[in-house]
Amino acid sequence: MADLMHFEDFHAGQIFPLGSHTLTADEVIEFAKEFDPQPQHTDAEAAKRSMLGGLAASGWHLAALAMRMLVDGLFNKTTCMGSPGIDEMQWRRPVLVGDALRLQGEVLDTRLSSRPDRGFVRFRFSMARDEVARKDEIVMQFVCSVMFKRRAGGV
Amino acid sequence: MADLMHFEDFHAGQIFPLGSHTLTADEVIEFAKEFDPQPQHTDAEAAKRSMLGGLAASGWHLAALAMRMLVDGLFNKTTCMGSPGIDEMQWRRPVLVGDALRLQGEVLDTRLSSRPDRGFVRFRFSMARDEVARKDEIVMQFVCSVMFKRRAGGV
Repeated sequence: MADLMHFEDFHAGQIFPLGSHTLTADEVIEFAKEFDPQPQHTDAEAAKRSMLGGLAASGWHLAALAMRMLVDGLFNKTTCMGSPGIDEMQWRRPVLVGDALRLQGEVLDTRLSSRPDRGFVRFRFSMARDEVARKDEIVMQFVCSVMFKRRAGGV
Repeated sequence: MADLMHFEDFHAGQIFPLGSHTLTADEVIEFAKEFDPQPQHTDAEAAKRSMLGGLAASGWHLAALAMRMLVDGLFNKTTCMGSPGIDEMQWRRPVLVGDALRLQGEVLDTRLSSRPDRGFVRFRFSMARDEVARKDEIVMQFVCSVMFKRRAGGV
């Protein structure tokens, strides 16, 4: 536990780069067939003829992908105790197969819980498309409070 | 298109029952291994020894499951054009393997878009656990605006 980040290790303004990922058509279709079976996510031919011009990832797939990047890039190195929910989730732009996506987290604020063993860290997570033409275009953003254990005995 | 629900067919107070589902251990583990690889979601033995006493579904798995129930139970019969995001998502209670889950949608309000071909319907979706001992206990709730096409020529 000593090496894991605790509540006290977070402070407003901290930035965490959380890696990048490019969704394949197989990934987009597999997720959508199970969880969001609408043609813009499951039918490559129909999607090509649509306004978007190609297969678009389900917004919930982007959210789940962000969680995976978060666990790998941050939570696995912390005393994360889960989250009571999301304050706000914005799907700002459609994401197509082949788009290179990058995730970043920023700490907005921290506060103690009424339970003495934990505290809340409120993050803004931003997923951006890595493209020269649309530099750092944010495609999804959400604000989320996460519980972390406090060090033994508090601060 | 004539048989599909359009923007004009929604009004505040409408209730949509959206079916039920019971998550299996295989479903919980498969989702978590790909998108939320934390031991409470992936390791049945560790989960049994934990405070929760069993495998708990990832909150993002519940969100994705709700989307599937929504598509099957409502959106497939509508002119749904997607969503700009979620206003608020609450994960109120842990959901364990075997819990029978029921989803319901309620229309909070409707408003025209600045684009003449569409309007926004704001829903509150509630996922409840169907148990005698914990009747209608809500485990997850989120508020979400969804775009629907207007009938040709508007109202």
